[in-house]
Amino acid sequence: MKINENYKKLKTDYLFAGIAKKINVFSEKNPNVNIIRLGIGDVTLPLVPAVTEAMRRAVSEMGEAETFRGYENSGVGYLFLRQAVCGYYSTAKNVKLNEDEVFISDGAKSDLGNILDIFSADNTVLIPEPVYPVYVDTNIMAGRNIIYTEGSADNGFLPMPGRGMKADIIYLCSPNNPTGAVYNKKQLELWVEYAMQNGAVILFDAAYEVFIRDKNLPASIFQIEGAKKCAIEFCSLSKTAGFTGTRCGYTVIPHELVREGEPLNKLWLRRQTTKFNGVPYIVQRGAEAVFGDEGLKQINGNIDYYLENARVISETLEKLDIWFTGGGNAPYIWLRCPDNMSSWEFFDYLLEKAGIVGTPGAGFGKNGEGYFRLSAFGSAADVKEAVQRIVKL
Amino acid sequence: MKINENYKKLKTDYLFAGIAKKINVFSEKNPNVNIIRLGIGDVTLPLVPAVTEAMRRAVSEMGEAETFRGYENSGVGYLFLRQAVCGYYSTAKNVKLNEDEVFISDGAKSDLGNILDIFSADNTVLIPEPVYPVYVDTNIMAGRNIIYTEGSADNGFLPMPGRGMKADIIYLCSPNNPTGAVYNKKQLELWVEYAMQNGAVILFDAAYEVFIRDKNLPASIFQIEGAKKCAIEFCSLSKTAGFTGTRCGYTVIPHELVREGEPLNKLWLRRQTTKFNGVPYIVQRGAEAVFGDEGLKQINGNIDYYLENARVISETLEKLDIWFTGGGNAPYIWLRCPDNMSSWEFFDYLLEKAGIVGTPGAGFGKNGEGYFRLSAFGSAADVKEAVQRIVKL
Repeated sequence: MKINENYKKLKTDYLFAGIAKKINVFSEKNPNVNIIRLGIGDVTLPLVPAVTEAMRRAVSEMGEAETFRGYENSGVGYLFLRQAVCGYYSTAKNVKLNEDEVFISDGAKSDLGNILDIFSADNTVLIPEPVYPVYVDTNIMAGRNIIYTEGSADNGFLPMPGRGMKADIIYLCSPNNPTGAVYNKKQLELWVEYAMQNGAVILFDAAYEVFIRDKNLPASIFQIEGAKKCAIEFCSLSKTAGFTGTRCGYTVIPHELVREGEPLNKLWLRRQTTKFNGVPYIVQRGAEAVFGDEGLKQINGNIDYYLENARVISETLEKLDIWFTGGGNAPYIWLRCPDNMSSWEFFDYLLEKAGIVGTPGAGFGKNGEGYFRLSAFGSAADVKEAVQRIVKL
Repeated sequence: MKINENYKKLKTDYLFAGIAKKINVFSEKNPNVNIIRLGIGDVTLPLVPAVTEAMRRAVSEMGEAETFRGYENSGVGYLFLRQAVCGYYSTAKNVKLNEDEVFISDGAKSDLGNILDIFSADNTVLIPEPVYPVYVDTNIMAGRNIIYTEGSADNGFLPMPGRGMKADIIYLCSPNNPTGAVYNKKQLELWVEYAMQNGAVILFDAAYEVFIRDKNLPASIFQIEGAKKCAIEFCSLSKTAGFTGTRCGYTVIPHELVREGEPLNKLWLRRQTTKFNGVPYIVQRGAEAVFGDEGLKQINGNIDYYLENARVISETLEKLDIWFTGGGNAPYIWLRCPDNMSSWEFFDYLLEKAGIVGTPGAGFGKNGEGYFRLSAFGSAADVKEAVQRIVKL
């Protein structure tokens, strides 16, 4: 039996293990310091009542013979949830979708990895860097050629395709993880134009779309004309509604997206019905509740809370004259390390002098060196305490 | 962008669509006939109280800040559930496992498909036929060479590797879907011996293990000496505890299973942490409850119920002198169609003369032609009514 040789090309992920180790060493030496964790990419507020009530009802249904549900017929999501997603796109983004263009899954990470099944290994992948490492690793696993377009302070960490770059598959994440930067309409129009010229497909990761409060910024690639012919959109309830431990997301593949005569919607349907059996009924009822009036009001309360944290951090960095991007329409703030420190030097500095943990930019690729990610997903009290410590420094 | 060309080699699945169409035509013509569905491969009894109570508690935890859970750290399952699985293996099967040999997932179907990620496309796959179509389709998608070993009445639909067959990856499903046949200890020993001689890996689908009531039959491949060096076992709570719509399964990869110097456990860990983010906390708490004393008692009550259905069907077939396999230690009965009918002819005959729906064996491959699958997952009343109708015929 031969293993997939490409796995040997993967780097072991030292980033978060390295961070955990440094924190342990520090806390042993400094048992009295209250460490504030702003490195975290996970939500902290509990599920909203609309969701827990819907899930409680669904649990009861599953315990009674008359209302019990076995296999979901297709494994691509109950119609009630696909309709709820379509309603959300129509109301919140003015994007019209058919229900069978929406595929429910256990999260954007799964779909972003699994979607590669339907593409040939013989494609070139274009990735803006710094980057969420999953885009890179999943393509290394399949042995694809990867090229990068470089994010920097000059382009506000919103890189565009370079001159002469030839790519087949393009990853875009906006609002971006890790930089919090958001592409504007003009920039996404240029990406769509580039994809159409190259016969490429854009994989658009919209996991943070709900944080966009500036109505001029696109919250879906399908707000761009022509995108339905060249893009797949991935979204998740993880950050939208605190579903990181509840697991539900969705992927949108428009019927117009056709390559080599094959609608990609049909290929993905075949992939999912063959290798997936759907999301728990209980979770789908919880997800449906997110998109109801009460649910949307409640989750937007949570988003306001996180964005207020981001505002507090941003305001402090402005006062200190530290360059950063993100924060306004994203839960992440991406700052330039002061005094030309490397991102790991700044990590140590912040931990040792202020007891604050963030994420070194170098963990997201070489263009992240010299930068640092702070997250707004903590508690308001912690964030306030953290900025006071930073100002003191 | 180039699509995965292998998708073009897949056959469109007409089996269940074809069945549904025939039922529709029949019911329109015969609106007064109460159709009994014994084709179904899905459970009908609701979740047991131990499970719904555990899930209700977990929903409450997710709604409170102090007990809320975000990302599971690893995405391979909470320790509490992996320990529960190890406890079950130790008590019910006398198999000792380490917690980190157990990977929790959303179901056996996902894992049986996704496991192929860690193997090279350049492997030959050996599949006993008739077969659950997912084994075949997932390998066609990856472009692997597939060879078959043929099930028949002569070998009790428990085929062994043929002389001179050279394979790298072997699928075994026992108790079998669709035939209900169960490999005995001696047969599995020969399979393990064959795998070791060929450096092959056995993918052992144990989704129906809980139906084995004959203590002499192996309920895990790891009851066979040496299997930890050559096998991966897939299991699911779908049939064990009615989780077809709740989604939880697990895959066991022993540390001893090493190929080309790489422990497959480590490769799968890398695959899952890169392309998967774990099963909902709420579902994992429900799954944990399955393996508690109360849970095991309750689910075994359900299994008894289904096995009694199987017994009623088997007894009738014996009386009618119809050859069959399965039923005793499996929820499926696999019978030879009377009067040399083809499996679709018998389907039509049974529907039109008795209003009973089953599954034509030809839907599971060419060796299924002339055979027919009945399922014991219906209600006891329906099964009794069905056998009366069959006897009348």
